[in-house]
Amino acid sequence: MGYQEFTIEGRNPVTEAFRSGKPIDRLYILDGCQDGPVSTIKREARKHDVQIKYVTKERLDQLSETGKHQGVIAVAAAYEYAQLEDIFALAKKRKEDPFVILLDNIEDPHNLGAILRTANLAGAHGVIIPKNRAVGLTAAVARTSAGAINYTPVVKVTNLTQTMEELKKKGLWFVCADMDGTVMYDCNLTGPIGLVIGNEGEGVGRLVKEHCDMTASIPMKGDIDSLNASVAAGVLSYEIVRQRLQGK
Amino acid sequence: MGYQEFTIEGRNPVTEAFRSGKPIDRLYILDGCQDGPVSTIKREARKHDVQIKYVTKERLDQLSETGKHQGVIAVAAAYEYAQLEDIFALAKKRKEDPFVILLDNIEDPHNLGAILRTANLAGAHGVIIPKNRAVGLTAAVARTSAGAINYTPVVKVTNLTQTMEELKKKGLWFVCADMDGTVMYDCNLTGPIGLVIGNEGEGVGRLVKEHCDMTASIPMKGDIDSLNASVAAGVLSYEIVRQRLQGK
Repeated sequence: MGYQEFTIEGRNPVTEAFRSGKPIDRLYILDGCQDGPVSTIKREARKHDVQIKYVTKERLDQLSETGKHQGVIAVAAAYEYAQLEDIFALAKKRKEDPFVILLDNIEDPHNLGAILRTANLAGAHGVIIPKNRAVGLTAAVARTSAGAINYTPVVKVTNLTQTMEELKKKGLWFVCADMDGTVMYDCNLTGPIGLVIGNEGEGVGRLVKEHCDMTASIPMKGDIDSLNASVAAGVLSYEIVRQRLQGK
Repeated sequence: MGYQEFTIEGRNPVTEAFRSGKPIDRLYILDGCQDGPVSTIKREARKHDVQIKYVTKERLDQLSETGKHQGVIAVAAAYEYAQLEDIFALAKKRKEDPFVILLDNIEDPHNLGAILRTANLAGAHGVIIPKNRAVGLTAAVARTSAGAINYTPVVKVTNLTQTMEELKKKGLWFVCADMDGTVMYDCNLTGPIGLVIGNEGEGVGRLVKEHCDMTASIPMKGDIDSLNASVAAGVLSYEIVRQRLQGK
């Protein structure tokens, strides 16, 4: 586990990096540089919603590690994911019942970053994210996680429901957040638990929901549909914290 | 109260809008347009962290209301703020003790938007923000508020502590969120209440804190310093909801 950034320098390497889908966080381009290859790179950057910073040659030289930047430097993110065992090892080390947060396709890096912060401070032993569609551990996530990415294990799995079944065998109960559930204060959220948070737009997927043991709802009094996903994760995580502290 | 967007078209009007500090949300520029005035506008946009979209002439013509865009259209936000009386009127209408969220210089539009969602769903009667430094009701805030901006009154005040004193006379108690406070479960958060949430980096300002009646803390078990500001606001708002529902 651990987070690092590295630079990709020069026109061909940067173009290739975009095309191969590398998680690029930001792009530095020599101010005033307008030729064909640079336009192609700018187009790729816009397509991938990557921030472009126009800088002086001095700044580029400073950023460059190879000295051969050709007016273009991309900063990419490299993160090594944890294993499921790491989560259980951490719970065991702290002599606590496992508390895991599962994210069913969170797409916004700000939300993932904020959820990692919450997981860390609420004492969760790890976060599990699916491989497809969802945002992974990019540089933007690392930044908004305010360092949590370096402490809280994040595991990437191919199939969320399969992982849930695996974890059930290890004694975990799963609760998902949904509006039609039991008010969270009336759910027993103590003991080994997996909290499932749904996608920003669609909530928890049907199949994942079917694999859950309980559905908990946050009381809502207002006019709109739902809380921000990272806020909902925070409110539910802290209901778990409260019940653990107060012995329900 | 109500939120609207309007366009500013043409080179001089857009440049002027940036310079006078109008809350511009995004900027459309004719793709390939490189001349002096357009470069100036791009520079202003970058300075104000405004998203630039490069579009075709057809798209600009479509967006234009005047037909005289000269290759540049800015989209600005217009929002009418509520008054303090609106908050009390809403509480009275619902026959509830007033519950107000005060934001001591929240700077990130995503946080403000998420907090407005929380305020709406947790049943707060309004949100109070200060005039200076803090982010106001921009188009980005409107978007991330998921509609809450149209329901929950947002009041902008010149001096937060002065407003707090005014509200104390109306019976409100103020609680601020800070790490050195009493664990929130042990605070009495029922009754007419003002919840004060601090700035993303610095927390609640010293002066504002001195005007609070209580300091509540969220239990933290982790390695990092603090929750995301909108998550902290959510967790505390829902502790207020819980205590109100359960009669503490």
